[in-house]
Amino acid sequence: MQTDTSEVFLKNCWYMAAWAHELVDHKLLGRTYLNEPVLIFRGQSGQVVAMEDRCCHRGAALSHGRMEGDCIRCMYHGLKFDPTGKCVEIPGQERIPPDMAVKTYPVVADGAMIWIWMGDPSLADRSKIPQLWYMHDPKWRGIPGYLHYDANYLLIADNLCDITHMAWVHTNTLCGSEAYAFESSEGGSFERLDNGFRHTRWDMNRKPPPFVIKVSNDKPVDRWNAVEMLVPGIFSMESGFAPQGQGAEKGNKEGAVVFQDCQFMTPETHRTTHFFFDYLGSHDSANNDVTLSLYNSLMEGFDEDKGIIEHQQVVLDADPNFKLRAIARDKGLAHFRWVLEQRIKEEQAAAAPRPRAAVAAV
Amino acid sequence: MQTDTSEVFLKNCWYMAAWAHELVDHKLLGRTYLNEPVLIFRGQSGQVVAMEDRCCHRGAALSHGRMEGDCIRCMYHGLKFDPTGKCVEIPGQERIPPDMAVKTYPVVADGAMIWIWMGDPSLADRSKIPQLWYMHDPKWRGIPGYLHYDANYLLIADNLCDITHMAWVHTNTLCGSEAYAFESSEGGSFERLDNGFRHTRWDMNRKPPPFVIKVSNDKPVDRWNAVEMLVPGIFSMESGFAPQGQGAEKGNKEGAVVFQDCQFMTPETHRTTHFFFDYLGSHDSANNDVTLSLYNSLMEGFDEDKGIIEHQQVVLDADPNFKLRAIARDKGLAHFRWVLEQRIKEEQAAAAPRPRAAVAAV
Amino acid sequence: MQTDTSEVFLKNCWYMAAWAHELVDHKLLGRTYLNEPVLIFRGQSGQVVAMEDRCCHRGAALSHGRMEGDCIRCMYHGLKFDPTGKCVEIPGQERIPPDMAVKTYPVVADGAMIWIWMGDPSLADRSKIPQLWYMHDPKWRGIPGYLHYDANYLLIADNLCDITHMAWVHTNTLCGSEAYAFESSEGGSFERLDNGFRHTRWDMNRKPPPFVIKVSNDKPVDRWNAVEMLVPGIFSMESGFAPQGQGAEKGNKEGAVVFQDCQFMTPETHRTTHFFFDYLGSHDSANNDVTLSLYNSLMEGFDEDKGIIEHQQVVLDADPNFKLRAIARDKGLAHFRWVLEQRIKEEQAAAAPRPRAAVAAV
Repeated sequence: MQTDTSEVFLKNCWYMAAWAHELVDHKLLGRTYLNEPVLIFRGQSGQVVAMEDRCCHRGAALSHGRMEGDCIRCMYHGLKFDPTGKCVEIPGQERIPPDMAVKTYPVVADGAMIWIWMGDPSLADRSKIPQLWYMHDPKWRGIPGYLHYDANYLLIADNLCDITHMAWVHTNTLCGSEAYAFESSEGGSFERLDNGFRHTRWDMNRKPPPFVIKVSNDKPVDRWNAVEMLVPGIFSMESGFAPQGQGAEKGNKEGAVVFQDCQFMTPETHRTTHFFFDYLGSHDSANNDVTLSLYNSLMEGFDEDKGIIEHQQVVLDADPNFKLRAIARDKGLAHFRWVLEQRIKEEQAAAAPRPRAAVAAV
Repeated sequence: MQTDTSEVFLKNCWYMAAWAHELVDHKLLGRTYLNEPVLIFRGQSGQVVAMEDRCCHRGAALSHGRMEGDCIRCMYHGLKFDPTGKCVEIPGQERIPPDMAVKTYPVVADGAMIWIWMGDPSLADRSKIPQLWYMHDPKWRGIPGYLHYDANYLLIADNLCDITHMAWVHTNTLCGSEAYAFESSEGGSFERLDNGFRHTRWDMNRKPPPFVIKVSNDKPVDRWNAVEMLVPGIFSMESGFAPQGQGAEKGNKEGAVVFQDCQFMTPETHRTTHFFFDYLGSHDSANNDVTLSLYNSLMEGFDEDKGIIEHQQVVLDADPNFKLRAIARDKGLAHFRWVLEQRIKEEQAAAAPRPRAAVAAV
Repeated sequence: MQTDTSEVFLKNCWYMAAWAHELVDHKLLGRTYLNEPVLIFRGQSGQVVAMEDRCCHRGAALSHGRMEGDCIRCMYHGLKFDPTGKCVEIPGQERIPPDMAVKTYPVVADGAMIWIWMGDPSLADRSKIPQLWYMHDPKWRGIPGYLHYDANYLLIADNLCDITHMAWVHTNTLCGSEAYAFESSEGGSFERLDNGFRHTRWDMNRKPPPFVIKVSNDKPVDRWNAVEMLVPGIFSMESGFAPQGQGAEKGNKEGAVVFQDCQFMTPETHRTTHFFFDYLGSHDSANNDVTLSLYNSLMEGFDEDKGIIEHQQVVLDADPNFKLRAIARDKGLAHFRWVLEQRIKEEQAAAAPRPRAAVAAV
């Protein structure tokens, strides 16, 4: 199961490419996605452009080049490319071959997020960009972050597919209790989707974790986590902590502390990943100091994950024959990997040359 | 000759795994042997356990886990393994498949030494552990040491198989004289063993090397080295320095300064080695300052070896076609590598699937 | 076109190996050329010797050995090699097999330059060493320099084959103007040679670049560059800056500031290069401060190149299917690579075993 999805990328889908703030000052951002070097920039007209980050002449990095309007000039021999990738100037040469060009990629600026489509551009459909309503609602505020991982992106997705890992990895940080791993959810649910899954878990009458106490108090809470995990690696989770016993599970969320958390795993190579995240609080609780403090708690948790996940990659690379054994709580992980595998297979089948129609023997 | 023994490990034998002092405070020692990641620890009952250092669930390192009695809990998703490797708890799951387990390895705590058996556990025979009497005699004292080598373990064994390298590599440290390389041993011997060799060398009426002067004086000595080199990489040497002319070679070792030196080469990978050593003085000469000073002299010598040996590995890796040329003094090296090669071949033959018995044609 | 020349070296030719000053104090210089580890040294008699930098016994580096006259002693087991590579002493062994030897290489000390021949020694012809007259004329002075490149040597040669890259890479350092890339040479020439090319370019009535102002003034100049680029990677360029309008292009070079620049690309491996250079001024302008200041300007320029070229290597390695597209100004580069490819093919053909003469069928 693991082999295919770790070694072949899904291409016809939107990947999170960058935070919008990474492109301010017309920075030429060179970043590799799915093994392809890409230059992303916001041109002087304001449009965002993504193109192959290597000059078609001698392979120099265009991200080391110079923006001229919405064009890029390679600073090795001066070739100039327009936002469609077409070469529009070769210093010292009058005629430019019409196919002298670098590849471009569909790219969408979607509020704080920049999305890229690495597959067939004719299939890029803006309506397929994952909808994360809270990223567009000014009431919700967070600090968009980034980590570089030395691990396949699916090992990070695996981690997020089973939130009970929090009990062990984040006992004293994000979770607050080992008991979390043993207790059964009350009134929770698991829903298989075509492109991932939804999972909701309720834990009633619990001690709140340390980072919640920062914005509330230490009285018992009824706690929920509502996770959505989508292909190719889009994780979104609502975490709520309501005063115990008021009926939050039936809809009365008054006085609850609620967070919205999104995390995006975008493959850089088969062994490295761009990991983007934002953890948002609603307006009332989101004064700057609290936001920063929550960001730091989150980073503490991410550091705990990162050590484990990068070591997993080392272990898996060291012995390709090592077989992983599933447990019951891998339900989400297994479904997610299965869905992704189907999507990759479909994509591969569609891309394969069609067999000739059989010739009828008369 | 070199190819096989450098690229295939002997598995059914005891390897030095760790010093006992490395396991104090119930440290979870993660260390790779023969390419296999192993966790070694002394459980709370006192027993020493060696198990696969990767959880059978998702490959997380158990050495990053937590000791609970003599059990280990993986701190990724909380699976708990007993000292036989069996999984005895999966949080959130009632039934545990009976084959849910990690591999364990026979391991023996033998005084200061912890030995591990990487091959077929049913063949692990405690009586085959190399006997080093002085490691169990309180009159002999040293400081157990460890170095990590970026080189195949046999390049280190080669080094130890010809002690005349001391004349060149350790002229001013362990040896004290270049002449040592040219002089012939008087009354020495070389004995081929099934599992290695013994070599004794006598040098009469010589200036003592600097480290001997530390514990004695600079008067001429009759000097001997009695080496035993055993498969898979166990080196033991008695070095003695007796007052010149008193007949040490005939048994009168009164007033001699004597050291016992053991060195263990345990493969980590095909290109890296765990190198353990202890250099012991007898009680009288072994006050703490002298012991420390001897340790430092030894380390000086080991640094000299390490530079050469690690560079050899670089040279050999750079050109697989490079053929080494033997000289007369490679007698020990050649026998040791040949013995090891035979042992590996036997092991491989025994492990190969047996051909079916021929069916008698009637 | 690129594949062959990047992956197969031309062997029967002279490569720049070291600067003479690198061998003072009888330094044992260990350096790899064309993937072969070589020791170069000036023996106590004064002769320069190049031999395989690995002892034929156990592969230890002879550059870690000891010079004894013009011989080298390996400091692992004491084998001694004479300047022809023959082993002349094995401590503890009387008979030395006549073929016990390390390989030696033809080597020539040519003023400040040491040249080495990595191919068939019987073909090494001293008269084929590139002639650089200014390196032997005391009126011309510079500071011989060295840089180590993480890139194939031909990527550096490519760079030097099109000097208009100066307009973009060295706009504010060596070139002084972007216009340089667009302007056409007046009265220039391009000459194809069997072993490279010559290219002369004139630019009339231009602002001098910053490094020229250091030794002259900022009045307009008539500027020329006369490049010679030879197999396997020998670049030589005269750069002149004459007062504008006096007819330098017709031969009146009075008052001109002139530099001689040589650069040598010697492969260390397929992915790394020894890059030697010297930038010489004529005596009048070559006071020490000016020479140092020019050296620093040059290094600034080289740093600009190095970043681009090493990144090119990364890009090319990341995607072996990436196809480079030529432009008109690649004329020199294309010819140089073609000439080199022919030379390599000839060499390979000559080295291949001859087909048996056909047996005449009767």
